[in-house]
Order: sequence, then C-alpha cells, then structure tokens
Amino acid sequence: MRDYNFSAGPAVLPLPVLERAQAEMLCLPGAGASVLEISHRGKPFMAILESAKQNLKELLGIPDGYQTLFLQGGSRLQFSMVPMNLLRGQTGPADYLLTGAWGKAAYAEAVKEGEVRVPWDGKQFSYDRTPADSDYSIGSDSAYVYFTSNETIEGVQFHEEPAAGGAPLICDASSDFLHRPLDISRYGMIYACAQKNAGPAGVTIVIIRDDLVERGAKSLPGYLNYKNHVDGDSMYNTPPTFAIYLVDLIAQWLLKDIGGLDAMYKTNQEKAKMLYDVIDGSNGFYQGHAQRECRSVMNVTFRLPNEELEKKFNAEASQQRLTSLKGHRSVGGFRASIYNAMPREGVVALRDFMQDFAKQNQA
Amino acid sequence: MRDYNFSAGPAVLPLPVLERAQAEMLCLPGAGASVLEISHRGKPFMAILESAKQNLKELLGIPDGYQTLFLQGGSRLQFSMVPMNLLRGQTGPADYLLTGAWGKAAYAEAVKEGEVRVPWDGKQFSYDRTPADSDYSIGSDSAYVYFTSNETIEGVQFHEEPAAGGAPLICDASSDFLHRPLDISRYGMIYACAQKNAGPAGVTIVIIRDDLVERGAKSLPGYLNYKNHVDGDSMYNTPPTFAIYLVDLIAQWLLKDIGGLDAMYKTNQEKAKMLYDVIDGSNGFYQGHAQRECRSVMNVTFRLPNEELEKKFNAEASQQRLTSLKGHRSVGGFRASIYNAMPREGVVALRDFMQDFAKQNQA
Repeated sequence: MRDYNFSAGPAVLPLPVLERAQAEMLCLPGAGASVLEISHRGKPFMAILESAKQNLKELLGIPDGYQTLFLQGGSRLQFSMVPMNLLRGQTGPADYLLTGAWGKAAYAEAVKEGEVRVPWDGKQFSYDRTPADSDYSIGSDSAYVYFTSNETIEGVQFHEEPAAGGAPLICDASSDFLHRPLDISRYGMIYACAQKNAGPAGVTIVIIRDDLVERGAKSLPGYLNYKNHVDGDSMYNTPPTFAIYLVDLIAQWLLKDIGGLDAMYKTNQEKAKMLYDVIDGSNGFYQGHAQRECRSVMNVTFRLPNEELEKKFNAEASQQRLTSLKGHRSVGGFRASIYNAMPREGVVALRDFMQDFAKQNQA
Repeated sequence: MRDYNFSAGPAVLPLPVLERAQAEMLCLPGAGASVLEISHRGKPFMAILESAKQNLKELLGIPDGYQTLFLQGGSRLQFSMVPMNLLRGQTGPADYLLTGAWGKAAYAEAVKEGEVRVPWDGKQFSYDRTPADSDYSIGSDSAYVYFTSNETIEGVQFHEEPAAGGAPLICDASSDFLHRPLDISRYGMIYACAQKNAGPAGVTIVIIRDDLVERGAKSLPGYLNYKNHVDGDSMYNTPPTFAIYLVDLIAQWLLKDIGGLDAMYKTNQEKAKMLYDVIDGSNGFYQGHAQRECRSVMNVTFRLPNEELEKKFNAEASQQRLTSLKGHRSVGGFRASIYNAMPREGVVALRDFMQDFAKQNQA
C-alpha cells in the first residue's frame, strides 16, 4: 500500500511512470533485455537518451546554443564543477547569492577554486527570503552569478530569476526544475539533480550554453570537464542509464499527461496555496518559515507551537499514511515537499489533516 | 522475449534480481513507496545500505580496517579521485601497470595530478598479456601501485594480484569484481563500477583501507575526497539509491542462490573454458587476442578470418538471439562478455553456435 510520501528527495514519482518501468523491467520492448542490462552504445538506449533530450528541449523550450547533459555525482559535484570550469582562469571573481543551506554549501566549494564575492546573504534574516534586484549589485568583472532557485531546507524560492548584471547566470535548480516554464536564454547554465521533480537519485541534468562549455581547462580532471561530456554526448563514460530512462518517462508524462509546464505550474501553485492557506488561517498555530512573497511552491516549511505537539502531529500524520513530513535535521519542524508528482489528493489529505489537528489541539 | 545478451556493460543481471525489483517497483515492503521514491535518510533505505555493505563484507571477507563506499561518476571519476587523494602531497611517484585501454585512461588522468612511473607497459605485445612479477620492479618510494585486474577491451586478466613492493596496491576491478574470492588485505583500495558484475550503471563500489582514506587533502573538491564519503557513510550527498538496492539484491543472489564466490568462480571458469575450447579447437578459424595464461574469464575476445565472415557471424548470431557480441569499436572483432549473471545456458548456446558456424564456414 502506497503512502502519501512528502519526502524532500528522493521523492514521489508519477505512478504511471513507475507502472511503465515495472511493466518493462524484464524486457524493454524491442531490446531483448531490461533497460538495466543494455549497452549504453546500442540503438535502444541511444533512442532513450535522444528522447530524454528532445522532451526536455520541448518542455523548457531550450534554444539552440545550449547543451543538455546527464551527469553523475549530484549537486555536490556541480558545486565543484561550476567553479572549476567557469571560475578558474577568469580575471574576475564569481558572485554567489546566498539564500539558504545549499547556496552556502556551493559557496564553500567555490572558494576552493578562486575568488568569490557574496553580493547578498540572507543570514541576517535567518534565510527567510530572497533578495530583490535592488538589494545588491554585481560588478562588471563578474565571472558568473550563482543562485539556488529553491532552498529546500528553508522553503524559500526565487519566483523570477535574479539580476546578474551582464554576467552569466548559473542556477542550482535541483529542487524546482521543471516545476514551471523557464526562459532558458536568461541562463548561462542551469542544473538539477533529478531526485525531486525530474527522476530518481543518481542523475544530474545540466543545461549549459556553448560558450561556457569552452571555459574549462584541459588540465581539469576528465570527468569534471563539461566539454568532455558535451563531446561525448553524455557518453564520456557509461551514463546512469536507468535514471535517464526514468527522466525520459517523466518528461513524457509532463508533456502528455499533464500538458506541459504551464499546466504543471498552475497545479503546483494550487497545491501550495492549499497548505499555505491552512498556515495563514491557523491563528499562529502553524508558523511558516519563509516570508510570504518568497515561499516555496515545492517545500512548505512550518513549525507547531511546541515540540510535544510536533511529535503528536508527526505520529498522527503517519497513522493517516502522510509520511516523510519531518523538517531537515538542521532546522527541525515540518516540511511538506509537494513536487510535481505529488497528486492533488495527497495535498488535500494533508490539508484536511492539518486543519483537523489544529482544531483539536489549538489552545 | 529476453535474448542472451553478451554486452560488456551495462550487462545481463540475474533474472531473480530483476523479478524482485519488478515485484517491489511500486511499493517496497514496509516502506509505503517505491525504493525509487524514499528518502535516503529514512529507515527503509538505511537498512538497504547496511545490508549491501554487510553482504559485500561477507562475500569478500572484507577485514576490519576497510571502508565500503557507494559513489557516483563511474571508473572515470576514480581515475581522477585515486591520484587526487593518494598521490598529491606524497614524496614518491605513483606506479601504473598498463595492460590495456582502461589502465592507459587511468594513467592519463594520474599524470595531471603528479609524477607517475610505468614499471610495465604491454604496448609492445599489443596488450595481449599481463606481466609476471619478475617483469618489473617497484621503487621503494612508490606512493601506490595501480593496475586494472581485467581489461575488457583486450580480454586480458590478472588471475593473481601483481607484486607491489611494499606500496599500497590499488585495483580497478570494474569488470571482474565479485567474479572470484579475493584476499582484500592485499589491497590498499579496490573499486568497481557496478555495471558488469555487481549492479546497474550509476554506482561505483570503493573498498579502501583506513590509512588511505586519510591521505586526501581538505582542499580537494568535496565530492572527490574519500574522507567525506567515509564520514558520511556514503551519504555525503544523496547516493544512487536504486542502484545500491540492486547491488544488495545481487550480493544476496551471490550468497544465497549461487553459494558464494568460490562457487561463482568455478562456474565462471567452466563458462569461459567452453568458449576458449571452441577457439582453440577451431584450427585458427577463431583467433583469440589474449595469451592463453592471461585470458579473461569475463570477456572472451576473438576474431574471424575476414570481415565478411565477421558480418555474417554477427547477423546469424543475432537471429539466434545471441546479442551484443561485437568487439569494442577500437579493436573490432567479437567480445563475448560472460559475467556472473550470464547463465550457463547462454554460454552453451553461444558455444554451439560458434561450433556450427565454424563447421559451415571453414574453408
């Protein structure tokens, strides 16, 4: 029996995708073997890779002049690959906008590779907001401007791209990739580990502009040079084939079952509003972390009046098969992750539970 | 309908493993969600990770003082991680034994990180053999001795560990890991991307001795420092959860269905002998690449008298559902990869086909 699983990642996947993966597990049609068993250089897998790229291109309107890569190592490896490729050898420093824990972790890797500035840091606000463009400025010598579009731990999200002066904008979109349409031409590079909205753990999607591909020095460790992956069409070495297969199935689901990213975004906003309305209407029983205008559509973070009630909330939610609601261990409280694949019924069930729980436990 | 799939990797997996993954695809028992959807920090996945580690420990008799890690990035990333962690900052150079294409690729990355010696290079023999211990010597200042236990492209395999002087022995066992029992205490580190014998593409198993874990400098990119992965128990970041789940199922299959690595090795040797006997008994119709005593038990490489016959062989083999037999594009000819999970019946079918084909096409 399947729960409503609010895990922050790895996270719920679309049921039709899981059902198809299950049906094809022993034998991919036409391949004579499981997708787990076939050569990455054979026609059946090459077709999957091409389909995944094309479907992402269609979903996001990726323009010419960008490459789509499927890499391993998660966002953590990108934290290093970005400055190793894009900062080393540049005359100016990189600029990092810090809006939460993941941006700070990326910054900690970047400083190993070169000079880094922090035009804006949300620390004084306990990372409860994103900056307005007028809150900071970017030097004309910037190698790139880096930001984290959605901070899963704090539940804080950029709803529009931040200003980057004239510098390339680099985005860690790990936890909100594919949740809304994007104008990719505004980005120098955008990447996402897949295990929130786009697939299972084990693959990271990188969309990078051609001129930035060329920035990496040949002396870089081979796997860490974007150019090697571009030249090899994500086959510089054996790619995570099954994870890419699932990314393709999820992209197909978004295109065909959901109807594209405009429709997906509308649903995502409606799902988030259901929970934020409960928080806002609870007379302070539920306390959200993020400022209203910076609230995440993906990760709804909130606390209860005390730890005793939080324990009770968690236990009763589990009984109703509403699971993985605990906040990140660094901040406590609760976090309802309601990515693309969380069905509306799951959010309705959580909303109703939250309302009932508040009613029964409010002083 | 499933073929007999002789792919060099990703490669055939045990059918009972695929069947169990299929049965549990929508809901892992007790987890309320697919293994693809659950948090890596929740109890169900933590139990899988622990089980995978314990089962590998039991299979290989991994002694205390070694850590077992599950990483991403494949062998290519290890080609860089090994010298970045184990060569940088050492007084002496590293020694690389070159017995084929993968060793050479590892060497090309190592020279980016420090001084590297090549005590033995099989180039003059077209990489058809491994060295005897008396063929080379290792300086007493060696930071480590690196070798590739099985070269998949050439079909050349070390059947025993090479001499390393007193230096730590580092092994890329990507294509023969778990094919026979090993004395892990002879190794400083042994690693394998999983997609041959141990799992699907997307996870690399690293077994590393505690003292070597400490060699990496703190200034290394975070993901590339073994110590971070040891400290995080393979959870420095989100691990490739589904791939680790399959590694665990495969380790269970080896322990319970096969009866351990002694039994597996016996079967592997019998399977390989069937094909090498056909080659040796073909009056030169089939020409093996490797010297007899260095032949791979995993990858049987051979050529036919001319390209026309090779095309015909490939076409007729495909008709009999014997697939992915083509040799690596860099060397041509054929390569029958007969990893642990290739059933004996598959090898019998290939043997019979090879015998018939030779009979009908021999001048």
